[in-house]
Amino acid sequence: MDYQVQQRDVEFLLDDVFDVQSAWQQIEAFADLTPDVVEAIVAEGGRVASEVMAPLNQSGDAEGCQWQDGQVTTPNGFASAFSELAQGGWLGLSGNPQFGGQGMPKSLGCLVEEMFWSANSSLYLYGTLTVGACLCIDAHGSHEQKRQYLPKLYSGQWTGAMALTESHAGTDLGIMRTKAEVQSDGSYAITGQKIFITSGEHDMAENIVHLTLARLPDAPLGSKGISLFIVPKFLPNADGSLGQRNGWSSGSLEHKMGIKGSATSVINYDGAKGFLLGEENQGLAAMFTMMNYERLSVGLQGLGAAQLAYQHSASYARERVQGRAPTGPENPEAVADSILVHPDVRRMLLTQRAYAEGCRALGFYVGMQLDLAKYADDAQAQRIGELLTPVVKAFLTDRGLECAVLGQQVLGGHGYVKEWGMEQIVRDARIGQIYEGANGIQAIDLVGRKVVRDGGQTLKELIDEIIATDVDDEFAPSLRDVCKRLTTVTESVVDRSKQDPNLPGAVSVDFLDFVGLTLCAWMWARMASCAPQDEFGAAKRATARYFYARLLPQTLGLERSIGAEADAVMSLPAAAF
Amino acid sequence: MDYQVQQRDVEFLLDDVFDVQSAWQQIEAFADLTPDVVEAIVAEGGRVASEVMAPLNQSGDAEGCQWQDGQVTTPNGFASAFSELAQGGWLGLSGNPQFGGQGMPKSLGCLVEEMFWSANSSLYLYGTLTVGACLCIDAHGSHEQKRQYLPKLYSGQWTGAMALTESHAGTDLGIMRTKAEVQSDGSYAITGQKIFITSGEHDMAENIVHLTLARLPDAPLGSKGISLFIVPKFLPNADGSLGQRNGWSSGSLEHKMGIKGSATSVINYDGAKGFLLGEENQGLAAMFTMMNYERLSVGLQGLGAAQLAYQHSASYARERVQGRAPTGPENPEAVADSILVHPDVRRMLLTQRAYAEGCRALGFYVGMQLDLAKYADDAQAQRIGELLTPVVKAFLTDRGLECAVLGQQVLGGHGYVKEWGMEQIVRDARIGQIYEGANGIQAIDLVGRKVVRDGGQTLKELIDEIIATDVDDEFAPSLRDVCKRLTTVTESVVDRSKQDPNLPGAVSVDFLDFVGLTLCAWMWARMASCAPQDEFGAAKRATARYFYARLLPQTLGLERSIGAEADAVMSLPAAAF
Repeated sequence: MDYQVQQRDVEFLLDDVFDVQSAWQQIEAFADLTPDVVEAIVAEGGRVASEVMAPLNQSGDAEGCQWQDGQVTTPNGFASAFSELAQGGWLGLSGNPQFGGQGMPKSLGCLVEEMFWSANSSLYLYGTLTVGACLCIDAHGSHEQKRQYLPKLYSGQWTGAMALTESHAGTDLGIMRTKAEVQSDGSYAITGQKIFITSGEHDMAENIVHLTLARLPDAPLGSKGISLFIVPKFLPNADGSLGQRNGWSSGSLEHKMGIKGSATSVINYDGAKGFLLGEENQGLAAMFTMMNYERLSVGLQGLGAAQLAYQHSASYARERVQGRAPTGPENPEAVADSILVHPDVRRMLLTQRAYAEGCRALGFYVGMQLDLAKYADDAQAQRIGELLTPVVKAFLTDRGLECAVLGQQVLGGHGYVKEWGMEQIVRDARIGQIYEGANGIQAIDLVGRKVVRDGGQTLKELIDEIIATDVDDEFAPSLRDVCKRLTTVTESVVDRSKQDPNLPGAVSVDFLDFVGLTLCAWMWARMASCAPQDEFGAAKRATARYFYARLLPQTLGLERSIGAEADAVMSLPAAAF
Repeated sequence: MDYQVQQRDVEFLLDDVFDVQSAWQQIEAFADLTPDVVEAIVAEGGRVASEVMAPLNQSGDAEGCQWQDGQVTTPNGFASAFSELAQGGWLGLSGNPQFGGQGMPKSLGCLVEEMFWSANSSLYLYGTLTVGACLCIDAHGSHEQKRQYLPKLYSGQWTGAMALTESHAGTDLGIMRTKAEVQSDGSYAITGQKIFITSGEHDMAENIVHLTLARLPDAPLGSKGISLFIVPKFLPNADGSLGQRNGWSSGSLEHKMGIKGSATSVINYDGAKGFLLGEENQGLAAMFTMMNYERLSVGLQGLGAAQLAYQHSASYARERVQGRAPTGPENPEAVADSILVHPDVRRMLLTQRAYAEGCRALGFYVGMQLDLAKYADDAQAQRIGELLTPVVKAFLTDRGLECAVLGQQVLGGHGYVKEWGMEQIVRDARIGQIYEGANGIQAIDLVGRKVVRDGGQTLKELIDEIIATDVDDEFAPSLRDVCKRLTTVTESVVDRSKQDPNLPGAVSVDFLDFVGLTLCAWMWARMASCAPQDEFGAAKRATARYFYARLLPQTLGLERSIGAEADAVMSLPAAAF
């Protein structure tokens, strides 16, 4: 399926909206990053996305992955495309330069990741798990572990996977059963079964490195008794060559709704050799380094779906002629007008566009907070990054599905037929709301851990920053109004949660949507306010107006709905469901 | 996939909410309809749905339909299940008794159709098109045509199909090219190609009767030059036996996102013999008899999906244990609590439930209006039925997808895996928003033809009826409030449409949602107000409260959004998309 990077939009964000040259010059690690390097990265990332990855998107879906006797075969062309992606250095883009990474800003990485997700989400899954595993090993591994694993992972010779879920315990990691027993050589024998392991087994790399959660025999009950292990498919020798095959295997592949080119395995660990990553019983915290990265990345997957859906449905709408403009024929010589004359077709396209561009800016903003936290020890940026990670994950994937469905709708019956590709975008996008912590989990993480726990303080700081932003008069009053209402809603949720432990979960999804819409409103006000006085800028202002007039009003309903007590969901007895 | 009819809920609607015995006694045609007959119909319909149709739902999806040299093979078991459905008289349930129909109320038919859609939407599609073809022939055919076709169609020996769409003209029927040329025997030779023909060719009946739109050589341009023809696969002899094979064939099948057991053909007419149905050049109006039936039926498909999704996700939630209640362990002996302790899981289930039960009541109400129009010459009921047909089609199918997605979400990763069945509900439900006039078309039909054209009069009458309904004090103020706001919004839309022809299309989808939510609020107030003082009634009241507290507030955002001028969608130049 065709995909084109929005080069001009990306440059607009970098140069005009976020003025990254100034921002990055404040950070020592990025001081050398010149505009031409950044531009070249964006252009080359776009080329890899559209020329290498996108051509395999539909064929990968049609072929899917095959399992036989524990061996997994990925779709034709995936291995060589992945190799090209890896050899271009894209997996190590924001990686540690000491071990072969490129050391580029996370924020820049967000822009590039979106392209890869748009182009081929099944294929990029092999990449994102590798990137996440690197982050985790870099943060928690010994020097020797970093030396042994990072260069091979950054280069894509080896790939990563995260093994958390067990069949009886999805979200509830505290009740997992996979066990780890220490061996005389200091390694651990891992035994148990994990399910839904993305990239757990495949044929695209010479080694596969699982980061696996397991429980030591004497570990405390619950989530405080979980340790993290590196469990490679082949045990590496000291010289980096591959040694013995480890004791785990793929038991089967899942047959899924979408992302069919991504191999999702049941993995059986049969006394497999594992190496402790970080401290004993501190595994969950260490795993969160990877999970937080993956959550942001999965949010970008939603954004990628929205952008891809927009491109295809806008292209269809431009070419399809049907019906007449309500104001009279626009093209009287022809048998019908372009369907772009129909206001509702425009509504569907503008919704996709407003979300895709607003969410891209939001993702970039969050990436910048993570950069500031990591490279400039900015504690507030750290808190805001943590606050917004669940928002990016859930809001962007929810909007991703919404935009994919809208894009499909623009195509009418063609949208439901496989050859046009739109229905695949819907099926592929749907997973983003489910994996890496279902969106309900993100919402309770936001409300419970990130808002109620600090009395709404961090969110309040962010709202203050929004209100203090200098934006055009056209948008400033509405932006202030939504901020004011969000402040009131937040105070109410914090207050009421003290009385009722069920309140955060009862309102969490609506609250997260309110936050996401407010942030999009901020991004749109900023974009509109610095848009140039040309056609490109006029389109930005028109889309901003659409967002404020037609999408932001959802917050009015959310505000009322969040005002309801938890009783609205708790009063029905369990037996009545 | 298991499906159970909600017998108690259905009886509650019939007896308590709508008091149909009183209502039907006012109508001569239904005067003999006793409660035990109605109950037996519901129970037997439920049995056919759960025992005959539901067991083939997943296998039908997995097998799909096969095409070879123009022959179409349906999934294993479909033919015999369809035969059982037909022999039970279900296709003729509301059909004309003079020609073998059962003459039952449309409203009762709505309840039964929902069951069939829940149980197996691919399989029921062969039924619904047959029912719709009967309605059209009954309304517009000659006595001889009725005698020839209706008994065979009611009995399912023959099936129906509607052939409208051409590849260059989806919604825009005015530009169709298929031509009809009169022959010396008074029949017509039909030539052209139609696409997306549901049940156009298959192996489940001895004959297939196409109702096909085509253009006579001297016909006026546009939609006023379209005629409707009966174009059977085999030409019937006078004695009802099958004669010569007609000159049309299936050129291929579509590969679709879902409803894979339903065969969707390209049909090539190669001088096929057609018989004029109704008058020359009046074909579109005649076809609308079928289309309006199908639109209501497709709305019920959305409802069926919502109900099926609810049943499966509620069942999963009851059995799945994970995590602990926010208020402390509910089941401290076990490793975890049921996920029903989590407020957000309840939110997802209650949303499905509130929409499914509210929409069922709404569908029944609209069915009653059609009964009153048809059998009691009630002109207001006729207008309200016409007003609400697009609302039922679009609102119920939109809610159908939403509920299917929520149900899938309750299952987490299992929701994305084929064997659990939930992802199929999503794929199958998605078509409801697209076919039979995409939901954007329904919305402009509502706002343009049904509201603006009569200055909002019919909608005003309906709102008056809602306000006049005696409901419990708990719900009355909110119901009055939303009615008042809908009145204001309607007046504003009618007014502004006079100035701006783009306004109806710009706000139509939001307006339709507003109407649908208001009607659901009405239904919930009525259900809560007559619910019995027992556990069943308590659940109804709790669900009503949930609807009012958490779903109805969406109207606040819609109200604001509908207030925006058309410029919000029209200002971006076409070239900028």
